[in-house]
Amino acid sequence: MSNRILVIGGVAGGASAAARARRLDESAEIIIFERGPHVSFSNCSLPFYLSGIVEDVDSLVLMDPETFKSQYNIEVRVNNEVTKINRDKKTIVVKDLATGREYEEAYDKLVLSPGASPILPNSIEGVHNKNVFTVRNVVDIDNLSRYIKENNIKDVAVIGGGFIGLEVAENLRLAGIDISLVEALNQVMAPFDYDMVQILHKEIMDQGVDLILEDGVKKIGEDYIELQSGRRVKAEAIVMAIGVRPETQLAREAGLEIGETGGIKVDHNYRTSDEDIYAVGDAIEVYNRLTHKPSRLALAGPAQRQARAAADHMYNMPVRNNGVIGSSVIRVFNMNAACTGLNEKQAKQAGISYDFVYVIPGDKVGLMPNSNPMHFKLLFEVPTGKILGAQAIGKGAVDKRIDVIATLIAMDGTLEDLKELELCYSPMFGTAKDVVNHAALVGLNILNGVFKQVPVTKVRELVESNAYIIDVREKHEYEKGHLINAVNIPLSELRQRVDEIPKDRPVYLHCRSSQRSYNAIMALQHMGFDNLYNISGSFLGISYYEYFNDQVSGRNKILTNYNFE
Amino acid sequence: MSNRILVIGGVAGGASAAARARRLDESAEIIIFERGPHVSFSNCSLPFYLSGIVEDVDSLVLMDPETFKSQYNIEVRVNNEVTKINRDKKTIVVKDLATGREYEEAYDKLVLSPGASPILPNSIEGVHNKNVFTVRNVVDIDNLSRYIKENNIKDVAVIGGGFIGLEVAENLRLAGIDISLVEALNQVMAPFDYDMVQILHKEIMDQGVDLILEDGVKKIGEDYIELQSGRRVKAEAIVMAIGVRPETQLAREAGLEIGETGGIKVDHNYRTSDEDIYAVGDAIEVYNRLTHKPSRLALAGPAQRQARAAADHMYNMPVRNNGVIGSSVIRVFNMNAACTGLNEKQAKQAGISYDFVYVIPGDKVGLMPNSNPMHFKLLFEVPTGKILGAQAIGKGAVDKRIDVIATLIAMDGTLEDLKELELCYSPMFGTAKDVVNHAALVGLNILNGVFKQVPVTKVRELVESNAYIIDVREKHEYEKGHLINAVNIPLSELRQRVDEIPKDRPVYLHCRSSQRSYNAIMALQHMGFDNLYNISGSFLGISYYEYFNDQVSGRNKILTNYNFE
Repeated sequence: MSNRILVIGGVAGGASAAARARRLDESAEIIIFERGPHVSFSNCSLPFYLSGIVEDVDSLVLMDPETFKSQYNIEVRVNNEVTKINRDKKTIVVKDLATGREYEEAYDKLVLSPGASPILPNSIEGVHNKNVFTVRNVVDIDNLSRYIKENNIKDVAVIGGGFIGLEVAENLRLAGIDISLVEALNQVMAPFDYDMVQILHKEIMDQGVDLILEDGVKKIGEDYIELQSGRRVKAEAIVMAIGVRPETQLAREAGLEIGETGGIKVDHNYRTSDEDIYAVGDAIEVYNRLTHKPSRLALAGPAQRQARAAADHMYNMPVRNNGVIGSSVIRVFNMNAACTGLNEKQAKQAGISYDFVYVIPGDKVGLMPNSNPMHFKLLFEVPTGKILGAQAIGKGAVDKRIDVIATLIAMDGTLEDLKELELCYSPMFGTAKDVVNHAALVGLNILNGVFKQVPVTKVRELVESNAYIIDVREKHEYEKGHLINAVNIPLSELRQRVDEIPKDRPVYLHCRSSQRSYNAIMALQHMGFDNLYNISGSFLGISYYEYFNDQVSGRNKILTNYNFE
Repeated sequence: MSNRILVIGGVAGGASAAARARRLDESAEIIIFERGPHVSFSNCSLPFYLSGIVEDVDSLVLMDPETFKSQYNIEVRVNNEVTKINRDKKTIVVKDLATGREYEEAYDKLVLSPGASPILPNSIEGVHNKNVFTVRNVVDIDNLSRYIKENNIKDVAVIGGGFIGLEVAENLRLAGIDISLVEALNQVMAPFDYDMVQILHKEIMDQGVDLILEDGVKKIGEDYIELQSGRRVKAEAIVMAIGVRPETQLAREAGLEIGETGGIKVDHNYRTSDEDIYAVGDAIEVYNRLTHKPSRLALAGPAQRQARAAADHMYNMPVRNNGVIGSSVIRVFNMNAACTGLNEKQAKQAGISYDFVYVIPGDKVGLMPNSNPMHFKLLFEVPTGKILGAQAIGKGAVDKRIDVIATLIAMDGTLEDLKELELCYSPMFGTAKDVVNHAALVGLNILNGVFKQVPVTKVRELVESNAYIIDVREKHEYEKGHLINAVNIPLSELRQRVDEIPKDRPVYLHCRSSQRSYNAIMALQHMGFDNLYNISGSFLGISYYEYFNDQVSGRNKILTNYNFE
């Protein structure tokens, strides 16, 4: 008796489940049903067609139904929408969108991989206008691209500053389009903390994108949008990318359990509340390994992994389910930004006791071409030192550093483990003590109370309250830009000028990237100073943190000049 | 009573130990003695001065004695050679090389960081000629560079195909010099296995370097060298880079214990057999975490880590000593090559039960610019699945993949752990199932006996013994180049043509990179074939493996054409 496996949805999760099932069972009958005209397309690559980085729209489709049939003996029915699941009869009802014909197919096992759909709030006037686009599939991106070319569009508004919004904004900008990027929150890229994301804000602005935060779209017109604030923005086309909603209607109507996060509930083996129905991908609820709570995660890697696990489980192969941590990377013009695990917001929300370090080491030996500072934030649990998450932003290989952290998190690694990692080094690729080793050393100092720190987010408050701040950079660096009331005592003069430093009040120290201020603090502590704070992130971090808000707020500047190098 | 800490050698290890001691003890008296004119230079960056990637020779020196004094209150005595350690009196004898004066200095703690010196065998006639150079420090590289420029040198022979030899060869080649690279073994870069290193051999040859293997230098003339084979090679200058010898003379003369590998023996805390003398860096013997045996490791990262640990131990801070695994990366023209842990040679030598996979996935989504195959070899212990080591070669981010493996090794990770790693993905940076995840999946299949494999190294034997080999690539791929007696049954025709495949003899399958041949094997096994072998590495791997030896041997070719894409 051969198995009949039906798969609903033919992108990352669905195609992977089908291919895996075929490898495990040559005799199974496997059919993929896909509402759209394409299966197995590279959804993560879609935005890159807008800039021409991907030249041919057809190349986004990785495998056609004929190849599925000839290479894997898997039947693919595109333009076929599954409209109902009859769990009692173990059948699905399918509508052939080309002919309108409805038919039924029986299954032994069913895999749901319906994905998630872009949110288009009806509260926005004009949201269904013909100049409003979303980016979910090849047809969408082709439509958007054609519309822009055929109508010679010059101004586009992208609504939403997440992965898709940013990638669409960047690729259209690279194609010469004027972009307004509108985000309802006070920052783009929610996976990054507010301090780190300022680096991206600056880069987005530097590239000529009109970045509008803390505002939403109220109304969409023919060649403009009107924002909640009343502001009018020129926009001949609008891309809506404010978020996605898991496609759970089919599952709901079939009475499958839906989780508290709104995703389809699955067990350890990606089985829904019906033992013959599996669900994978963006539509399901997953278990977060760090918060120990259900969550959602719309990423391609986990979707493929879940699909494989579901197929394995059908064939009685034991499945490992570690939960998810969420690792991602994005290019934002000349900056790369990657993160894994928890950020501060998430750690707070989960009630986890944590601390963090923000360091800015060089990503390569300074002598090498394209050596740049890398902004690196590392969160760890207190008092265990267990690594909870990291964020890295810079021009260089942020993905490398984040992958190391993701690996350590998966292995329950601590700051001690991270400090000792023997990573590969050559001046072209990194530094002998890598960014991540460096972060671990600073983290251990914080954890062990070797010195105290304040974050860049507190510096304005310090300056405004006239705190005693020492800038230990050399005089020529100080003169190029410094905190308005910082005292310049270069590390090289520290020991001679120690009498200038007060002992009766807190003293805050910084340099360019906190390396020298750390040395200064250690020296001063040995001399009997006991109320010292390192400004984590130092002048580079302060510059980025203050820059964006200075640009938009017109508030008093606390720096005579910024320094981003 | 303040500590008096003397440090012998002022490069990676010495400078780090001194700086760390200062942070732990503001009152200690710390003096670094350095025989050469510079401390704290970037020795790993030296070769890059030859091509002009590093433009200014002075920039190689990261910190001068004055800065050490002003910023760290550390005294640095350059051009001062330590000639003797009086352990009973706890003093050292120093010779000021400028004046010839000899003097004595007392220590509480002594740190030896003498490094290792290039080997210059006296058996080579002319090895001390003025046209023979080594590359150990800034003076060396400056001398070599000047000699080449001032004498308008066109032909240089580099002796030794290790890190330094290859980097010198590459950087001189980039400067337009004709290079002969002479290596006594049958391969360059000993940390890589013979199958993997063929990719580098090809790249070196493609760049116009005359690569001479299995030959050594017998005699050095004014504008030529004569090899052991009798061959004469044009060479106006010669760079000797056949290896380094730990500088142990001072330690030996002081009666400190020397390990079986020839390095200074140290304990868990990098203490020598004298409890007041520490030793760190290239001169010591370290403990290999994977072989559980003493070994030597001339790398900058571990040297810095040892130095920090030694200083910490002086101040009663507990030190963690994980042993070493050895992680490294090198750029070889357009190829990057990185490795960590054990290779096959080392695993065999250590008597470790292992198996391996060789996969060649794309390093990025194929649609993206600069997407390239990455050759990835992963070793794991049998039957535990514990990761033992990996080698990665390609145009892309090999260092990223190797750092993940190095992290897993440090955490005693297994194939199961590697398979599940949630790494950051975006089409510009990788694939949803990363190279390393992919390798783990294949590794688990091998470990679990899901299918059998033969390595590319055995393919010639198979061809010559007329084994039954199926190439499952599509016809147009096959026609561009294939094994001379392989039968072309494309995966897309496999199920129709299954009757052509013999059941009474072993059948070997391959495609381009083993993805399709894996699917073919799974299908055929389900159909009752039980004597199938996947050719690990497939056509890409076979092409590289055969190419170099075909070029130099003139033997019968087993491929109608190579394919490196």
